[in-house]
Amino acid sequence: MARSTDFIMTGGPVELSDRVRGALGGQLIFDYSEEFMTLFRDTQEKFKTFFRTDNDIVMMQGEALLALEAVSVCGLDEGDVVVNVESGHYGEGNRYFLEKYGATAIPVETPWNTVVQPEQLEAVLKTHPEAKILWLVHCETPCGTQSDLATLARLGKEHGCLVFVDSVSCAGSTEVRVDEWGIDVVVVGSQKVLGAPPGLSAMAVSDAAWERFRSVKAPNRYSYFSILDWKEIWLEKGFWPYTASVSEVAALNAAVSEYLEVGHEEHFRRYAEVGRATRAGVRAMGLGIWPDEEAHACDVVTAVAMPEGVDDEELRRRMRDQFGVLISGSLFNTPIYGKLVRIGHMGKTCSPTYALAALSAMGHSLRQMGHPVDVGAGIEAALAALD
Amino acid sequence: MARSTDFIMTGGPVELSDRVRGALGGQLIFDYSEEFMTLFRDTQEKFKTFFRTDNDIVMMQGEALLALEAVSVCGLDEGDVVVNVESGHYGEGNRYFLEKYGATAIPVETPWNTVVQPEQLEAVLKTHPEAKILWLVHCETPCGTQSDLATLARLGKEHGCLVFVDSVSCAGSTEVRVDEWGIDVVVVGSQKVLGAPPGLSAMAVSDAAWERFRSVKAPNRYSYFSILDWKEIWLEKGFWPYTASVSEVAALNAAVSEYLEVGHEEHFRRYAEVGRATRAGVRAMGLGIWPDEEAHACDVVTAVAMPEGVDDEELRRRMRDQFGVLISGSLFNTPIYGKLVRIGHMGKTCSPTYALAALSAMGHSLRQMGHPVDVGAGIEAALAALD
Amino acid sequence: MARSTDFIMTGGPVELSDRVRGALGGQLIFDYSEEFMTLFRDTQEKFKTFFRTDNDIVMMQGEALLALEAVSVCGLDEGDVVVNVESGHYGEGNRYFLEKYGATAIPVETPWNTVVQPEQLEAVLKTHPEAKILWLVHCETPCGTQSDLATLARLGKEHGCLVFVDSVSCAGSTEVRVDEWGIDVVVVGSQKVLGAPPGLSAMAVSDAAWERFRSVKAPNRYSYFSILDWKEIWLEKGFWPYTASVSEVAALNAAVSEYLEVGHEEHFRRYAEVGRATRAGVRAMGLGIWPDEEAHACDVVTAVAMPEGVDDEELRRRMRDQFGVLISGSLFNTPIYGKLVRIGHMGKTCSPTYALAALSAMGHSLRQMGHPVDVGAGIEAALAALD
Amino acid sequence: MARSTDFIMTGGPVELSDRVRGALGGQLIFDYSEEFMTLFRDTQEKFKTFFRTDNDIVMMQGEALLALEAVSVCGLDEGDVVVNVESGHYGEGNRYFLEKYGATAIPVETPWNTVVQPEQLEAVLKTHPEAKILWLVHCETPCGTQSDLATLARLGKEHGCLVFVDSVSCAGSTEVRVDEWGIDVVVVGSQKVLGAPPGLSAMAVSDAAWERFRSVKAPNRYSYFSILDWKEIWLEKGFWPYTASVSEVAALNAAVSEYLEVGHEEHFRRYAEVGRATRAGVRAMGLGIWPDEEAHACDVVTAVAMPEGVDDEELRRRMRDQFGVLISGSLFNTPIYGKLVRIGHMGKTCSPTYALAALSAMGHSLRQMGHPVDVGAGIEAALAALD
Repeated sequence: MARSTDFIMTGGPVELSDRVRGALGGQLIFDYSEEFMTLFRDTQEKFKTFFRTDNDIVMMQGEALLALEAVSVCGLDEGDVVVNVESGHYGEGNRYFLEKYGATAIPVETPWNTVVQPEQLEAVLKTHPEAKILWLVHCETPCGTQSDLATLARLGKEHGCLVFVDSVSCAGSTEVRVDEWGIDVVVVGSQKVLGAPPGLSAMAVSDAAWERFRSVKAPNRYSYFSILDWKEIWLEKGFWPYTASVSEVAALNAAVSEYLEVGHEEHFRRYAEVGRATRAGVRAMGLGIWPDEEAHACDVVTAVAMPEGVDDEELRRRMRDQFGVLISGSLFNTPIYGKLVRIGHMGKTCSPTYALAALSAMGHSLRQMGHPVDVGAGIEAALAALD
Repeated sequence: MARSTDFIMTGGPVELSDRVRGALGGQLIFDYSEEFMTLFRDTQEKFKTFFRTDNDIVMMQGEALLALEAVSVCGLDEGDVVVNVESGHYGEGNRYFLEKYGATAIPVETPWNTVVQPEQLEAVLKTHPEAKILWLVHCETPCGTQSDLATLARLGKEHGCLVFVDSVSCAGSTEVRVDEWGIDVVVVGSQKVLGAPPGLSAMAVSDAAWERFRSVKAPNRYSYFSILDWKEIWLEKGFWPYTASVSEVAALNAAVSEYLEVGHEEHFRRYAEVGRATRAGVRAMGLGIWPDEEAHACDVVTAVAMPEGVDDEELRRRMRDQFGVLISGSLFNTPIYGKLVRIGHMGKTCSPTYALAALSAMGHSLRQMGHPVDVGAGIEAALAALD
Repeated sequence: MARSTDFIMTGGPVELSDRVRGALGGQLIFDYSEEFMTLFRDTQEKFKTFFRTDNDIVMMQGEALLALEAVSVCGLDEGDVVVNVESGHYGEGNRYFLEKYGATAIPVETPWNTVVQPEQLEAVLKTHPEAKILWLVHCETPCGTQSDLATLARLGKEHGCLVFVDSVSCAGSTEVRVDEWGIDVVVVGSQKVLGAPPGLSAMAVSDAAWERFRSVKAPNRYSYFSILDWKEIWLEKGFWPYTASVSEVAALNAAVSEYLEVGHEEHFRRYAEVGRATRAGVRAMGLGIWPDEEAHACDVVTAVAMPEGVDDEELRRRMRDQFGVLISGSLFNTPIYGKLVRIGHMGKTCSPTYALAALSAMGHSLRQMGHPVDVGAGIEAALAALD
Repeated sequence: MARSTDFIMTGGPVELSDRVRGALGGQLIFDYSEEFMTLFRDTQEKFKTFFRTDNDIVMMQGEALLALEAVSVCGLDEGDVVVNVESGHYGEGNRYFLEKYGATAIPVETPWNTVVQPEQLEAVLKTHPEAKILWLVHCETPCGTQSDLATLARLGKEHGCLVFVDSVSCAGSTEVRVDEWGIDVVVVGSQKVLGAPPGLSAMAVSDAAWERFRSVKAPNRYSYFSILDWKEIWLEKGFWPYTASVSEVAALNAAVSEYLEVGHEEHFRRYAEVGRATRAGVRAMGLGIWPDEEAHACDVVTAVAMPEGVDDEELRRRMRDQFGVLISGSLFNTPIYGKLVRIGHMGKTCSPTYALAALSAMGHSLRQMGHPVDVGAGIEAALAALD
């Protein structure tokens, strides 16, 4: 008999904290009330701290895909050349948006278990001095990999590109220093590190990016996709372009407040600890990590390579039914689906206790499926890797 | 000193019921869990009953504007001729979308305190046999007016048009018989009659509309705007085009379930009663109703014409601060802002008690502002108009 | 068809505010955690401010009856003489406790629609110099009456009595100055003016009362009734006498915090305004107030005398079914049940808007029952009586 | 830096499920509404199923201590002889109540790490044919021990005793067959196996017990302690003896409903599995179980003997601060405090995943304190003991 799912340790969305749930389930706050307007502005200010930036914050009223697509919709002109780093599904998918909205994408590809190296990117940037934009995916969550954003972003800057970054799933688990690194647009999702429900995304937009949005041939205005509307209608005039998702905003405000009260440094320490310990546990158990190197692994999910002959769906079902632990496979409909599973560590679940519970559950379930693992060694190794 | 706002009687979003809040604030339900998929499908089925249709239901993951814009994005080809009924802000705004996405709009206009008459529409349809689409706004909430949808939709059908309807704010307060009336696309918002928070919209899509979306020159796929994605990825294959707003969906499921358990007929009776009684009270108090005729008034809001010299913002502030009753003005940035205020009756606030409270608060506040009204007569008239 | 009950305007318990509900429905806080101990102590401190006292605060883990009975259980010796003011059901009921636990009660009685006068009490106190305790009920909620506590308490003090006060339902709507007036024990309920759920009661205990509890022949210890346990085990040693009702305590902390943030003066003003306006409305409508004089009426409920031939149960049912307004009759099983109904104004419902809604609903329902009232005049009179 | 306490695995109260929290934090339900009366009766019926009885159910409005003390208050006459089984703190404490309320207690004692054997009890019952009552504690939670209730209760019955049982913490984790075993009164707490917040207790009362309560010299009526009031006022007449704790009752209804939907058998299986696995893990780690025999251990908590020199408070603090796992020591102020810690498995926390998390956390913390344990072996042994 299935137990209730008490441990939602997926690649996002993840378990909500009590504070987030309290804000989410409160009575509606009317969008044009002072209370809501103040709450919205407070959330913006907190995202400036989150992103270490003085740039404007725009909160798109939809899942991160809306924000990512909107960057292409608003930021591209026919024929623009964009250098697009592709180490996984999200980088590849972004190429589709670039081309749909008129640009020519110059892909910088790697296998989906590693990340692009600075030299590789630099070579492409040198070959394409006409490139106006560099598009980077910080963390390829379906692969459990993470790039060296600071270095890659600076390369883009040095080569005169606007730097657009998808940090949807990992901003907050690791540094994203927007002003210092010269990032023009960066997008984060509500339902990942911040642990709010899905439905919102936040972006920081530089002056250069605003200039770009205003100067393309047909600036996008009066549209659900318009980033400019948020600048010109909300930030400048104090009207809503359309009705904001007030309950989601209240939840996101709670989430980002909770994040900042704990602080960047403590979060970075926790993610590093939990990621490191989980990977150590997985390896000691006798399993492989999907990313090719420890340094290329993100800390928001631990991607575990499925051993030959192990059905990842059965594994996940067993973990859920017997232990109430819900983890993710890779993304459906991608070439690597079935080849790995992902233990999430985002938001409330970024905790050694959740990780230890998941390791025990995974080990036991694999053994039930006839695949021998040393669970005890895995737990010991994970404990040894804790701070 | 300001009281807490206990009576959110705006033009939407409105107060949430306890059941909706309970669903909204529950622990996250993972998007790829059976529990969520079942919940999502159940919501779709309930919207079929809501719209009295067998057509597919698509729930766009954003406020109604997303759905309305998406209909133009997905449904138009360069040069299409669309007859566009414009009795208020939303009809007029839709013309913008039609032209942005390549169509030629044939406006059918009226002053903003009345609605288009069948003869007027029929004349235009006859003059434009090349029109492929008729676009109708059922209720112009900023004006408090409501059209005769059944008649207008049938006229469109008779003239060979696809009939696209914005019933964002009033479906559920009055009949919307999709199959019987031949409506190809109709959109309703989560935060109006249904009383869920803003952030979602539902539409019913006919086979002819699907055919249209698939046969335009560049069918819109893999986009936050793509209605087709929901057909081809979710409805047909069971994958999510992107992460659904799971908490909002849970809330909307609760809202539509609550609606259907009470039933269409009882809702129509309630809205008619509350709308009629509020308008009677307003008139007996000595004030005017904004719509030109009782038959043109919607029941989701009561639009009260502001007497000469009365500052609507002061009136609303007094009602809020002294009585905790929050009502709306007309929409900001429209020509009629300041000329009327709107007492909302949607969702939980569709109740004679809320309406009586609002009438007392409005009357007292007007008197404090030096404008004489007969509150007692207003209350008596409202009571006399109850069932 | 019955509407949902949106307006819980009874004699208590009453509607909960969002803040109280949020605290109540939060995840459990373990009783021996620092978090809970701090919360409990903070609640005690807030009750000191609430009662304007430096005396100890004891929070009994049960409805006010537990606290009231405990005062007799812990404070009486066989043969003690207690002067017991009886203006209603609770005063009378207290006589039962006094006698059950060994005392001789000297009743000071009045009809149940008025309150005891200082001269009447003084005469009894003079006749009974052997009396050691004066027992006072501040507000007889079933009758809608309220005594002059300051004067009566001082009389008790002057005659050498310990003064024990039941202010279960009205402390917070009006002054209770424990230290200034020399009150030895006063009890307030969670579910009345404070608007928390029922299940807790708070009392302020003077040094003289502690001395009394310790010096009776068989001091009550190690019992659910023991007030002393809270002093000797919790206040002095930091252990729990038994498991505290942690969720109720969290809710009560929210309620008393919310109360104090608004402040005593504003609450006293609100209660006075709402009580006065409601009584004015009732009278102008053509109905009678149950208390014999305006000065004897409490502000926590408005007791409306039932006109000859009006069935109070039918009236209440109609108000609930048609308007969602729930009011109280008098207490079941008392001689005055059926002779009056009570519109509550406690907690969140202490608002002119709630009161106006109740007046409209009551008037309409009475008229439907064939009893003529002038609702318009009632509303006008209530509005005229607002600040 | 302390983590949030995500794993409340104490000896009770314990974590609340979402369903319980939803019911608890809902808007107040008025005590005299049909809705609440129906809810209360439904809860009673569900406790009949819970206790496998047709006897009346009484829900005392206070923590279990209220119910236990009330049994002595209502059920004893001066000079009654009561056989009182004492294997731990609660048995011993009950002797205090028996003597306080006039009875002579015949103690049947054991060391506090084991339970009374049938022969030992039988010998005492034979020696005391004048005994009218047998008092049993089913589970001594502070010691982690559990008696063979079926056998002991039958012995009492055979010797003509009324059988009163404290099953506050373990009813629901194991069989309590009231009718089959002839139990006259049994008490269960809300905050243990049922996982509701503390503040209520339920008891099943046989006809013989009612007869007893009515026939003592001074039957207890009109008191917070009166069990008879619930029979004569509520069960027979439908009035409340005093205001019920409506929010707590709503939560308890949710808890017992959730329990019964899963079912007795599945719960018994789960508790047995989790208790067995945890004890196996503790032992394999190199630690001792406090109860002297596996058969004497309860499954609601695992009592772990503290090794020589290990400070249990430090251990618990480390587990809480580093892992967010909150466990209990033994009861404060008892002779065994400090000699053991207790991992709770009640309510939502009765799950192998919670147990595995606690074992990992305990092992790591002990090691940090310089006490060597084999965590890996502990985890392996626990997993091997799962079903």
